[in-house]
Amino acid sequence: MRLTRYFLPVLKETPADAQIASHRLMLRAGMIQQSSAGIYSWLPMGYKVLRRIEQIVHEEQQRAGHLPMLMPTLQPAELWRESGRYDAYGPEMLRIRDRHKRDLLYGPTNEEMITDIFRTHVSSYRQLPLTLYHIQWKFRDEVRPRFGVMRGREFLMKDGYNFDLTPEDAIHAYNRHMVSYLRTYERMGLKAIPMRAASGPIGGDDTHEFLVLAETGESEVFYDSAVEDLTLGDRAIDYDDRAQLAAIREEWTAPYARTDETHDEALFAQVPEERRRSARGIEVGQIFYFGTKYSEPMGALVTNEAGERVPVHMGSHGIGVSRLVGALIEAHHDERGIVWPEGVTPFGAGIVNLRQGDAAADAACEDLYARLSAAGVDPLYDDRSERAGAKFATMDLIGLPWRVTVGPRGLANGVVELTERRTGRSEEMTPDALVARLAQIYAAR
Amino acid sequence: MRLTRYFLPVLKETPADAQIASHRLMLRAGMIQQSSAGIYSWLPMGYKVLRRIEQIVHEEQQRAGHLPMLMPTLQPAELWRESGRYDAYGPEMLRIRDRHKRDLLYGPTNEEMITDIFRTHVSSYRQLPLTLYHIQWKFRDEVRPRFGVMRGREFLMKDGYNFDLTPEDAIHAYNRHMVSYLRTYERMGLKAIPMRAASGPIGGDDTHEFLVLAETGESEVFYDSAVEDLTLGDRAIDYDDRAQLAAIREEWTAPYARTDETHDEALFAQVPEERRRSARGIEVGQIFYFGTKYSEPMGALVTNEAGERVPVHMGSHGIGVSRLVGALIEAHHDERGIVWPEGVTPFGAGIVNLRQGDAAADAACEDLYARLSAAGVDPLYDDRSERAGAKFATMDLIGLPWRVTVGPRGLANGVVELTERRTGRSEEMTPDALVARLAQIYAAR
Repeated sequence: MRLTRYFLPVLKETPADAQIASHRLMLRAGMIQQSSAGIYSWLPMGYKVLRRIEQIVHEEQQRAGHLPMLMPTLQPAELWRESGRYDAYGPEMLRIRDRHKRDLLYGPTNEEMITDIFRTHVSSYRQLPLTLYHIQWKFRDEVRPRFGVMRGREFLMKDGYNFDLTPEDAIHAYNRHMVSYLRTYERMGLKAIPMRAASGPIGGDDTHEFLVLAETGESEVFYDSAVEDLTLGDRAIDYDDRAQLAAIREEWTAPYARTDETHDEALFAQVPEERRRSARGIEVGQIFYFGTKYSEPMGALVTNEAGERVPVHMGSHGIGVSRLVGALIEAHHDERGIVWPEGVTPFGAGIVNLRQGDAAADAACEDLYARLSAAGVDPLYDDRSERAGAKFATMDLIGLPWRVTVGPRGLANGVVELTERRTGRSEEMTPDALVARLAQIYAAR
Repeated sequence: MRLTRYFLPVLKETPADAQIASHRLMLRAGMIQQSSAGIYSWLPMGYKVLRRIEQIVHEEQQRAGHLPMLMPTLQPAELWRESGRYDAYGPEMLRIRDRHKRDLLYGPTNEEMITDIFRTHVSSYRQLPLTLYHIQWKFRDEVRPRFGVMRGREFLMKDGYNFDLTPEDAIHAYNRHMVSYLRTYERMGLKAIPMRAASGPIGGDDTHEFLVLAETGESEVFYDSAVEDLTLGDRAIDYDDRAQLAAIREEWTAPYARTDETHDEALFAQVPEERRRSARGIEVGQIFYFGTKYSEPMGALVTNEAGERVPVHMGSHGIGVSRLVGALIEAHHDERGIVWPEGVTPFGAGIVNLRQGDAAADAACEDLYARLSAAGVDPLYDDRSERAGAKFATMDLIGLPWRVTVGPRGLANGVVELTERRTGRSEEMTPDALVARLAQIYAAR
């Protein structure tokens, strides 16, 4: 993309009402614009990151064998009356009446609706196991929305639901979600720690939250630092292998890690003192096993092998897709701006032309732009007639991982400059070498 | 995808309340499920088609130079009070109050919101031209929703908005949209004819609707049959070339083509009699040039080259993404089921194993499944233990363009069967030849 053809309305001033880094930086970098309290438009660069995150979530869900579908944003009140949650949910649920005075609500989550779909179409254990998920806008009418997309009212979430015959099958689905979530966050360049959590309005006994450590997190967390060293890396995962998934779950959940709601001082005291950590965390996902909590009242039954009608065992599993954009920035920024990990960056590299209008510089930039585009790097070319300082400041603010600087002086020596945003380290090299280097960095993406 | 691992709840019975083919077939093929009047869930196969259509729209919009972004579903009433449409819109607008008694609405369209974004960030003609678009769920509270996704209440729409300094620039944007829409529909295997239309609640003088001819269409249309023979084919289009785009617009709009709202009997009489057609059509898109209708009342001004503050010239442009799924089926089905064009089919081919459990048949199917997957054909393998007749009926109903039939008898002769859904023609060939043929058919997709 050429910057002169893009819509990137960066702000010079720091917005006064934005209290945390991600909110400030998303506004300053022209990623979002508020339309009402807690409701945002995603401007082109913000939307690009959002879609990138959505894509990673889709890929990892489908790799785990889960089926994508889509439920609507508005739901009929009747379904929620069946489960008893319509009256129980409180004022966070946005209740709506249509022109025929029928009660609707803007879905804050979808357990009832997916259970209704399931009971309509599935009647035999032979159709199990089944895990359906979707990525859709939800609404929770927060009394005081704040922190930008981190605690908005309209937000994008992946929610998935498993249907299994037995508790053991449902636990396998739970483990599948835990592992696929670990992979999802790792691909985004995030360290998200699964922590034993409280179940809240979804219900159920077994539940973990995934928390990204950040000073501005809303939860206090306590953990054994050993959990920070774990990575999946590129180990091969077979999502049908129950023992492998159970072992990975054990690996991540054996070290102590809990939110303040489930924190147990006595257990924590058993962690070696030098590994005891307390910090703040941002919730970016949660998985639940709740058994027959919805299938019993709503009559989601299947016939088992013995011919008996039994309620299915269910769980639900969520990733905060729009919130992740904020969480990523909280985890990856410095005083100059955002520092995107390669996995989610809106553009693979920024090209800065130091002397727009200089024939050699323009030609070299055009050539690099074409070759990096062809190599799948997806560059952003700053082709504005601005001073170098202004161009550098914009690149630092929007946080592309790599900057390519092109100027007459370097070109006279046959080189351009490659700068890593994270470290600030620069290196001169030929355009050929630079294209090869960036192509290699993004080959795996 | 293996059918035993998929969720494809096909219905044997024709749903009683579905009046038109697309509604019946989408229900029978397990593509959608109604949750309230005019509000649907998209089950996995329906969702796959919807995403495929969305992807084509994104690609063609971006090829034309338009920038993707995303606006929220809920909008503040204040913006619509500025334009005067909050009170004017009528009961189709779903009005909502949040917990703080603030008025919101579920956006039926986005002229006000995009104008607000524009006026916040753009102040100079140097930042023009600019065209922003998004693909988002909308809501119109139809008094009597019907025809499935064709006239639902919650629907997915691409809407785009251009901002230009002069009427001439805005007309170029209009032409860009017309051409990109023609390409979009052609890629989906649809013939959509641009027809001079009435402007309705969006406003403006210059507007065309794109109509797909179908018996169940809601509009009566009148046209010169010459327009049916036009195709863009693979001609190279430069979206910056004003003369080229104007010529394409002229080519498509010179033949008479109007909806009943703008029909002119005297003009129609000048069409040679043998080319005069009247038919029914389904609207799948509309483009508008409305000048300063929103920019004046809402103060969306830019400084021109002479230093004067002038309102920008705007247009808006919509494609009914979810409605297109229905329109495609109306245009492409027979008595046995859907007949997907290759451009939008949920799976490239279906593999039918005639004797599940037979070692040779199973091995041949597994091999074809792996090779077709690797070749990008995205096959659906019917690996159920069902009779051949039931498998054929399912494949005909869901309408994949190609069926691969594998059985012990053919394998004994080293062949499998390839059947074209559209014509019913079958041909025997080696598995190698079949993989090569299908790979070639989908290479361009």
